[in-house]
Amino acid sequence: MQKEREEFLKEFTSFLQDRGFIWGPSPEIYGGFAGFYTYGPMGKLLKNKVENSVRRIFQSFDFWELETPIVLPDIVWKASGHLETFADKIIKCSKCGSAHKADKLVEDVLDTSAGHYSDQQLLNSIEENNIRCPSCKSEFVYEIEKQSLMMKTKVAGDDASLRPETATVTYLPFKRYYQFFRGKLPIGVFQIGKAFRNEISPRQHVIRGREFTQAEAQIFIDPLKKDDWEKFEDIRNEKLPFWCWQAQEKNTRPELISVEDTIKKGMIKTKSYAWCVWLAYTQFLNMGIPAENIRVRQHNPDEKAFYAEDAWDIEVKLRSFGWTECCGIHDRTDYDLTQHSKFSNTNLSATREDGSKVMPHVLEIAFGIDRPVLAMLDIFYEKKEKEEGKTLLNIPYKLAPIELMIFPLMKKPELTKIARAIKSDLENEFVVTYDEAGSIGKRYLRSTELGVPYCMTIDFESVKKKDVTLRDRNTAKQIRVKIKDLKEALHNLLNGELKFEKAGKEIKVPCLKEE
Amino acid sequence: MQKEREEFLKEFTSFLQDRGFIWGPSPEIYGGFAGFYTYGPMGKLLKNKVENSVRRIFQSFDFWELETPIVLPDIVWKASGHLETFADKIIKCSKCGSAHKADKLVEDVLDTSAGHYSDQQLLNSIEENNIRCPSCKSEFVYEIEKQSLMMKTKVAGDDASLRPETATVTYLPFKRYYQFFRGKLPIGVFQIGKAFRNEISPRQHVIRGREFTQAEAQIFIDPLKKDDWEKFEDIRNEKLPFWCWQAQEKNTRPELISVEDTIKKGMIKTKSYAWCVWLAYTQFLNMGIPAENIRVRQHNPDEKAFYAEDAWDIEVKLRSFGWTECCGIHDRTDYDLTQHSKFSNTNLSATREDGSKVMPHVLEIAFGIDRPVLAMLDIFYEKKEKEEGKTLLNIPYKLAPIELMIFPLMKKPELTKIARAIKSDLENEFVVTYDEAGSIGKRYLRSTELGVPYCMTIDFESVKKKDVTLRDRNTAKQIRVKIKDLKEALHNLLNGELKFEKAGKEIKVPCLKEE
Repeated sequence: MQKEREEFLKEFTSFLQDRGFIWGPSPEIYGGFAGFYTYGPMGKLLKNKVENSVRRIFQSFDFWELETPIVLPDIVWKASGHLETFADKIIKCSKCGSAHKADKLVEDVLDTSAGHYSDQQLLNSIEENNIRCPSCKSEFVYEIEKQSLMMKTKVAGDDASLRPETATVTYLPFKRYYQFFRGKLPIGVFQIGKAFRNEISPRQHVIRGREFTQAEAQIFIDPLKKDDWEKFEDIRNEKLPFWCWQAQEKNTRPELISVEDTIKKGMIKTKSYAWCVWLAYTQFLNMGIPAENIRVRQHNPDEKAFYAEDAWDIEVKLRSFGWTECCGIHDRTDYDLTQHSKFSNTNLSATREDGSKVMPHVLEIAFGIDRPVLAMLDIFYEKKEKEEGKTLLNIPYKLAPIELMIFPLMKKPELTKIARAIKSDLENEFVVTYDEAGSIGKRYLRSTELGVPYCMTIDFESVKKKDVTLRDRNTAKQIRVKIKDLKEALHNLLNGELKFEKAGKEIKVPCLKEE
Repeated sequence: MQKEREEFLKEFTSFLQDRGFIWGPSPEIYGGFAGFYTYGPMGKLLKNKVENSVRRIFQSFDFWELETPIVLPDIVWKASGHLETFADKIIKCSKCGSAHKADKLVEDVLDTSAGHYSDQQLLNSIEENNIRCPSCKSEFVYEIEKQSLMMKTKVAGDDASLRPETATVTYLPFKRYYQFFRGKLPIGVFQIGKAFRNEISPRQHVIRGREFTQAEAQIFIDPLKKDDWEKFEDIRNEKLPFWCWQAQEKNTRPELISVEDTIKKGMIKTKSYAWCVWLAYTQFLNMGIPAENIRVRQHNPDEKAFYAEDAWDIEVKLRSFGWTECCGIHDRTDYDLTQHSKFSNTNLSATREDGSKVMPHVLEIAFGIDRPVLAMLDIFYEKKEKEEGKTLLNIPYKLAPIELMIFPLMKKPELTKIARAIKSDLENEFVVTYDEAGSIGKRYLRSTELGVPYCMTIDFESVKKKDVTLRDRNTAKQIRVKIKDLKEALHNLLNGELKFEKAGKEIKVPCLKEE
């Protein structure tokens, strides 16, 4: 299993690099910093698509986007608790002195999550399993130390840190939101932006990087209204693969349960929080991750943060790394606003209609963008072993980084002129690229590897008949479409509202030399 | 003049804060860090629009987007020269010891650009004009010191810095691009992302922040091909307000000159570089900045960086700060790739078709996103003094942060149901918000302040006739439009392809109580 994964990862990583998806660790020409990556032209287009999908969904459920700073003074991180507690537990080798993440050492051997182990539990596990220094095979010093994950800097001489998540920074302007939304709860906001963690051992490609993109949404809500959540009614019957902590302990599988039943069974306490879990799940479905690759896992009571009322994760199954945490949904209660009220000497409470004061609770959906991007590539990459060059990125059409490639059959002015004009007409609404180099067969192969749903060829017939050939990625079928109908046809094809064969006149595929 | 600007800025800043555009310095509840700002819900929508406009334009001219890390090891900044030379020139007070930017002190008094002054020139100016410490009015120590603008951090113990621009980081993966684009020059790439500068005196709101968003595009080009630039032919006759350095010295105004004539007159040396200047200008026009607020200023030979073959800026005229540099276009020659080849021991040259080697030159367009965002708000904000509450954000319709607000006339289920359904139908293609609170008159006023081009009201007629009222921001005219025709009408209205009166049946505006 482990070996199979490693082999896949090796081949997959070289696909990501060669096809311009993800390069790194960056900067490569200087040897690379572990945990830093570069999105190449294809990777960035895909990342933009994922971010826009996330943005659209949050916006459609009345969350408003914000952009706060990345660098903040350390008083903020003192209040949030990050400065004290946001650290890796490390253990040092008694001989070579190298430091290692204690929970990772245990996880590698026991194949279980050890992130919530106490220091003593970690030491016990290391001793019982005779875990030794991966570098020199010597014994460890019998002591767990803490190493801060915060990336530090100075601003005009003052101590500051780069945010390790967007969340904390989002709570700070609460009074501004409260005024902008005319003093009414609930308030929904979100951010998509960079965060930084000084991981002692970055690993699993972009899954655990030192610099990464977070998408995090918060609902500020009156604790008395957590069960008064109108949007719940629209989704009460939706079934998700819930995996509560008791089922995990009993080693039973996740079950498809309706959102409503999680409340009835007491698995989830409030409607608003259950809705957040549903929304997080929906985000991943809408990115194009297949339902069978997703499960919704509850944190063990030992595992969740001390302030969290409840915590569930969205996990996605990858070929490279197996089930991988991709999103956390937390009921953070009034912990954050209370802390920041105290440390900033600013009252962050809200006022109810009856005049009484209330410290809002925060319901939070937090995920990285890098993980689903990698997940999509991991899941949809299809290497065709025998016929070299026929590798397919089988990504859902709607999420494809490039939606359409435009090819003049040959580099002749009468063809390139039409091709350029079509590109310029379509590029405001679609992600379109233009390629005039190499044989058509080679260009088709290339487009398939990059997951491009449709290729358009402009040939000499196009000049006379004002139509073009459109080729479908997955079937290699070809149709002729009138230039004037292209826009509508492409919209409907990409939305899945039109069958390819109905979008134009089907043609016999000419015998193309695919060198 | 100065006083007028300050008064406008004060009023304008409070508009930005109250209407959810820009808040700061952030984090406000902790007193704020100078040079850090938060985009509120409205500001973030506008920033997204500007970034998407930039992205679309670059993409349409065959630039490919990338995303590189923000944090890089110091060897990179040593190679780029930033570690040595990227610093503010400061002068310290002999009495209170406070440090001040020397060029800024001179500029404040002389009302001229002093960024390119030598240390001696700065000291002379300070002495000649008897400039004293702004804090305590004492004399300065007669010495210019340097203070690095780099924001430093450590990654796993190694020295690293946050990038002060995206550019340097974009050059590093050149070999990757070169392979992805199949070994052919020219190659066009761009990035939109965060950068950080430890400014000693952040000032002018988001114009000179410590954390900001850059948009930077590069063309890697064979130096022998700088005059072989096909795209030049399409724009040769376009006229821009060029202001060469000689004209600046003679104190004459910018002149509208065709791009071709700048080459003929020897103002600009190569077609590819002239095209870059045109493209930068086009970016600002497309953001909606009026042509009369833009000029294209050449750097004085003293002013430009030592490696730059030529340098022009796009300047935008603001009510708050006058003419403000918003973009730089540089011919950086082979400086960067040569430096990084040397420091990384990697040959970054390209191979011509005839087999000869060439170190590509870099043509660069670099601008911040925050400046044009602020510029648009600055230019289009119209405070109506007498009639309080009728303030208008007169932003071009296409660039409006929110394109459409949907109002049910009253909070009745039969109306809100239709309103919600229309929102859900439109929100995939438009930036739409929904508001059911307060009188219609108040909601209209609010929408005008936020610059929303169209408001849609669903009333009891809508239930029967399946149509809605659409209201135009600038004329307050109203029409009835069939629900089924909304999508097309809105597309055409926002694109400016349809006159409002033609989009539906004009109606007499009922007498609304605008409390």
